Amino acid sequence: MKIAIDAMGGDHAPKETVLGAMKAVQEFSDIEILLVGNEPEINQYLNAHPRISVLHTEEKILSTDEPVRAVRRKKNSSMVLAAQHVADGKADACISAGNTGALMASGLFVVGRIEGIERPALAPTLPTIDGSGFVLLDAGANADARPEHLVQYAIMGSIYAQKVRNIEKPRVGLLNIGTEEKKGNELTKQAYGLLKESGIHFIGNVESRDLLQGAADVVVTDGFTGNMVLKTIEGTALSVFSMLKTALTASFKSKLAAGVLKPQLKELKNQMDYSEYGGAALFGLKAPVIKAHGSSDANAFYNSIRQTRDMVGNEMVKTISKVIEVN
Amino acid sequence: MKIAIDAMGGDHAPKETVLGAMKAVQEFSDIEILLVGNEPEINQYLNAHPRISVLHTEEKILSTDEPVRAVRRKKNSSMVLAAQHVADGKADACISAGNTGALMASGLFVVGRIEGIERPALAPTLPTIDGSGFVLLDAGANADARPEHLVQYAIMGSIYAQKVRNIEKPRVGLLNIGTEEKKGNELTKQAYGLLKESGIHFIGNVESRDLLQGAADVVVTDGFTGNMVLKTIEGTALSVFSMLKTALTASFKSKLAAGVLKPQLKELKNQMDYSEYGGAALFGLKAPVIKAHGSSDANAFYNSIRQTRDMVGNEMVKTISKVIEVN
Repeated sequence: MKIAIDAMGGDHAPKETVLGAMKAVQEFSDIEILLVGNEPEINQYLNAHPRISVLHTEEKILSTDEPVRAVRRKKNSSMVLAAQHVADGKADACISAGNTGALMASGLFVVGRIEGIERPALAPTLPTIDGSGFVLLDAGANADARPEHLVQYAIMGSIYAQKVRNIEKPRVGLLNIGTEEKKGNELTKQAYGLLKESGIHFIGNVESRDLLQGAADVVVTDGFTGNMVLKTIEGTALSVFSMLKTALTASFKSKLAAGVLKPQLKELKNQMDYSEYGGAALFGLKAPVIKAHGSSDANAFYNSIRQTRDMVGNEMVKTISKVIEVN
Repeated sequence: MKIAIDAMGGDHAPKETVLGAMKAVQEFSDIEILLVGNEPEINQYLNAHPRISVLHTEEKILSTDEPVRAVRRKKNSSMVLAAQHVADGKADACISAGNTGALMASGLFVVGRIEGIERPALAPTLPTIDGSGFVLLDAGANADARPEHLVQYAIMGSIYAQKVRNIEKPRVGLLNIGTEEKKGNELTKQAYGLLKESGIHFIGNVESRDLLQGAADVVVTDGFTGNMVLKTIEGTALSVFSMLKTALTASFKSKLAAGVLKPQLKELKNQMDYSEYGGAALFGLKAPVIKAHGSSDANAFYNSIRQTRDMVGNEMVKTISKVIEVN
């Protein structure tokens, strides 16, 4: 299989992108990688490999670009070219750590939706205390959603959890502000009934305070709420860590003690680091499109490639397409 | 002024309620407190005080009761009687640490709305890293909201921040999934325009990841999102602390070091403890109704009483009423 990567997206591009790609081709003998971007810059880090090719382009989408306009105008940008290769059947999937909105627009307008899917969804995998993680969708592809969209998210999330995360019977929860059936806003009240009859393993409402405790394997919500919760988790964890740092360096004695605890504290930060699970997948498109975190290092890119390989290898798109056809 | 307190609400009632009330009358010579609840139980902890009286009742609302039904049927419950005293003009405000939904229903049906206020809002004050805190509303009084409701929330939050939190020109932010004006869902897009023209000090959209960094003094949102974010912050902070605890007790060496750091870690937990700011106020009612945290200890009750005293003393309800009349 061939994976197209936007080599210029993210804070540490193209260096970490290239290093991640090199690690991936060593690890997996069944993948070929196409790096799209500035060839001289890429070549600074690339050791020639028979399964890595480079497509040169000088145009790129910036994180400050207005997404839809950027995708329409910058046809030769590394991101759009990577997506175009997927659309043309020259690659099986694409990855970028660049502008999230632009990647979603590339997915929607260049790669295209699966027939029957009304809205694609952005689906990151977030950490849980026990290390198993959960898939959250929609994390922001579409701010507003109708109840039927949440059912499609639940179906796609379930398939992903089975095919890529190897969970036999994924527990699907509806993100809500109470666990009782009648709780919530108009959207969740209506979605509850539809989810109960959708054939997936629906376990009812889950509350945001229980997410990191592993309340469900797949958590569905509208893109506004999903994005809000995602950023709240990130922001709160970062704030607590920053307060912890201040507390631990308050005195000479505490600094000494904190020094002893350094490995444990690092381990703790790693537990909250969800790049281990790969990037955020865009579900509902004709081929996997993966958003790697903007701050991805080589290992995070490697993990995103591994995840993409699983999505392609396990024919996730085909399965979604079949299930949606029946529903 | 007289404050009616549901002595039977919360996990540690009536002991901590009574202890908090005793501390408050010692501290503030201008308040009288009416404790409503089981008199023999209350008297176990109460040292007779000329400014504390007790109203005996044996009925109480349970945390498992369905809110609206409980308020309608349990007319002699400690919570409803406290609210009834406010409605009858025998008390200036009331406080309960009991069933949140039932307290909101008591506020709405017994105390009643300020004329012109369409929806009351639940407004807790949350911690920030620098210790100044921010007011979040609506944190769950009404799951769904219209754009005009958010403007009323902004007005009420501003007045509270000025009158009670002593912030001269409170910065009001609209909770959103991006900082640009056009970001968000239908609700936030429409509310943005209205807030810009509302006469309050509107600073635009704020993102949930920046809340604990003190992005705004007053943060407005619909009750579904507000409740979601509140629970996400709580859940994430608790999860990080629990992971921290596991990490710090992993080995004998780390346990020793963690022992040295105990005061710093406790201080850190205190920083995240928002009971210092008092309870969650219900805005938009004819008199202050305060929801103290269910796990409130004597100090948390004391803080809620102090906050209630500020709301009454600074005539918050009168001010809201006047401003809403003009708008």
